[in-house]
Amino acid sequence: MIYLDNSATTKPYDEVIQSFTKVATTYYGNPSSLHQFGVQAENLMTKSREQVGQLLHVSPKEIIFTSGGTEGNNMAIKGTAMKYRNRGRHIITTAIEHDSVHEPFKQLQELGFDVTYLPVSREGFVDPHDLKDAITAETILVSIMHVNNEIGTIQPIEEIGKILKEYPTVLYHVDHVQGIGKVPLSLRGAHIDLCTISGHKIHGLKGTGILYISQGVELSPLISGGAQELQKRSGTENVPGVVSFAKAMRLTMEHASKNSNKMKKMQSELKSQLEKHERIIMNTPAEGAAPHILNFTVKGIKGEVFVHALEEKGVFVSTTSACSSKRQKPSKTLLGMGKSYEEADQSIRISLSHFNDFNEITPTVNAIFTVIEELKKVMG
Amino acid sequence: MIYLDNSATTKPYDEVIQSFTKVATTYYGNPSSLHQFGVQAENLMTKSREQVGQLLHVSPKEIIFTSGGTEGNNMAIKGTAMKYRNRGRHIITTAIEHDSVHEPFKQLQELGFDVTYLPVSREGFVDPHDLKDAITAETILVSIMHVNNEIGTIQPIEEIGKILKEYPTVLYHVDHVQGIGKVPLSLRGAHIDLCTISGHKIHGLKGTGILYISQGVELSPLISGGAQELQKRSGTENVPGVVSFAKAMRLTMEHASKNSNKMKKMQSELKSQLEKHERIIMNTPAEGAAPHILNFTVKGIKGEVFVHALEEKGVFVSTTSACSSKRQKPSKTLLGMGKSYEEADQSIRISLSHFNDFNEITPTVNAIFTVIEELKKVMG
Ligand SMILES: Cc1ncc(COP(=O)(O)O)c(C=O)c1O
Ligand SMILES: Cc1ncc(COP(=O)(O)O)c(C=O)c1O
Repeated sequence: MIYLDNSATTKPYDEVIQSFTKVATTYYGNPSSLHQFGVQAENLMTKSREQVGQLLHVSPKEIIFTSGGTEGNNMAIKGTAMKYRNRGRHIITTAIEHDSVHEPFKQLQELGFDVTYLPVSREGFVDPHDLKDAITAETILVSIMHVNNEIGTIQPIEEIGKILKEYPTVLYHVDHVQGIGKVPLSLRGAHIDLCTISGHKIHGLKGTGILYISQGVELSPLISGGAQELQKRSGTENVPGVVSFAKAMRLTMEHASKNSNKMKKMQSELKSQLEKHERIIMNTPAEGAAPHILNFTVKGIKGEVFVHALEEKGVFVSTTSACSSKRQKPSKTLLGMGKSYEEADQSIRISLSHFNDFNEITPTVNAIFTVIEELKKVMG
Repeated sequence: MIYLDNSATTKPYDEVIQSFTKVATTYYGNPSSLHQFGVQAENLMTKSREQVGQLLHVSPKEIIFTSGGTEGNNMAIKGTAMKYRNRGRHIITTAIEHDSVHEPFKQLQELGFDVTYLPVSREGFVDPHDLKDAITAETILVSIMHVNNEIGTIQPIEEIGKILKEYPTVLYHVDHVQGIGKVPLSLRGAHIDLCTISGHKIHGLKGTGILYISQGVELSPLISGGAQELQKRSGTENVPGVVSFAKAMRLTMEHASKNSNKMKKMQSELKSQLEKHERIIMNTPAEGAAPHILNFTVKGIKGEVFVHALEEKGVFVSTTSACSSKRQKPSKTLLGMGKSYEEADQSIRISLSHFNDFNEITPTVNAIFTVIEELKKVMG
């Protein structure tokens, strides 16, 4: 099996599973309990928070553990919009966000918020000037993804951060789920107020993640109750999950540059071999993309059919993002870039991990070419 | 160590951890992925959902997997209040709910909802007549816990359900977190619309749980995005967590009656020995309490001091609920029952599991009596 669907989810590191199991078995106390057994669990929370803070060069107090990227995005967006709604009701995002950003914006729109969806260029990039032009006295929040999950474009997060620095009452949220460990980003340097990361995209466990909340930024908790996580996210802490997340982060960040280089080389090799085929049109731009995603259209063949044919050959890829593929929604990102519905419907996403290896490239390319030949005959 | 803080959290079953590890290691696909690897993960979700549905005698379509009890309560309460807010803005709960119900109600109150907090009797019970009297044409939601987490009282969930059946536009939410596996409750029989269960209170894993949502009941998703979980709770599914939750539910429900009887006997033995002490006043009523919780006041000794002294003897108990104990908030439940601040501040909660054994009773009682003697001298 050649697994090339790492933007959908990744195989957990063995060490991550070991940490989880160890904590779940031995340190099962409730961190809120007063006795020693609770204190042990609390210490594990503290250590994990410090570790993650260090890896992101921020304060441990700015790290809130969540159940994943979707919760983090919802918490950041709805939480700040509801908190600061009396300051203004205009919020800004882009046309190509992941559904876990897009849907919260739609829910807020239904509640009376005014939403601007920034367009992207034909190559998939947001223009910082468009952002600047969109800001009004009513604007309270801007949410822009770092790396796009469908085609891998890197948005100008730092440049936008510089602009937003001039508007201290506008909060800046970044969905960093596909960027972390692949494309360096300084949270402080880019003046980011809120930043979402998910565990299972970096060989951590599903159901784990964090939201970075810059000191001083308040929000109306999405999940309120026993006031855990600095009162920002209640619920008995998933201590084994938290420890396993810190472990996944450490393993990811320690080798980020080496691993990114490896992926970049594999991506480049795949690209140069694939684009030789007359039916294949690259959607991922040549410049400004993350090292792990390669999106292309196979002219005349529906993406869904292609994915299934390719898995028969032992190669696992996807059409669009995992959660849209089931619902057969064409890629928002490709449509946003001005591609036709047909081009979007015929697109394929390869997504790499450093667990992939160079010796998987030739079998992958061969499988893709063979499948095109086979399906060409059927589909004409 | 004698662990008697099982209402705070429980030790996971070995089988639960094994299931988790197995799935996290082998079936790490994203259930939304089209290929076989995603389908395998989706099948595990389906099987788990069916199993949980069967155990609760409801349809699998009515089971939504969550990250725990706090999320479930928030989702049920805020989700339905926001969804049905144009029907009316009056919502009802009790004065003794867990913070994960209480806080969402407070947040909704800030958003303009009108909240009724039903009082409880001196023994800690809600009176169904009070509920009936509180309902107005504006009422859209009633949320009442099954078993109270601080003193173990069982609320008249079925009787209230019968009343609410006459008001088809009023939704009925029950926090079943402390009841499941200890006190039988028929979700259908009690006409419950929404019901919260948490994994880590039944020897499952932290960060797992479900919300039962009766067919036809809609809500505005707390966590929106990729439309997972029948569009009611988005986010890449925590497949290992879900499988482990189904396992915990099965092990819990299979032996529920036997285990409850065992706890009932231990509770009764503890009670009759403890109440012989002149300083001890039982707060848990003699009738109508769950088998696993025993709450009492130790006159003249602060609960916090008592917990720490007792842990020196290897016995782990708690003051109030785990999440309130850190914040030194006196028990809402005891205050609601008309106890003084002092009585509440001097209260201790013992909470049992079927993993506890009869041979732990004498050492526990001895430790408690010794600690009282020791602290009496210090505190006068
Ligand atoms: C860019 C992006 N944001 C958010 C998410 C959601 O994260 P999670 O799957 O942890 O809910 C994903 C992946 O699904 C993603 O690719
Ligand atoms: C009655 C009750 N409801 C809700 C919860 C919250 O559940 P969880 O700890 O899974 O967030 C708890 C325990 O903390 C509880 O005892």
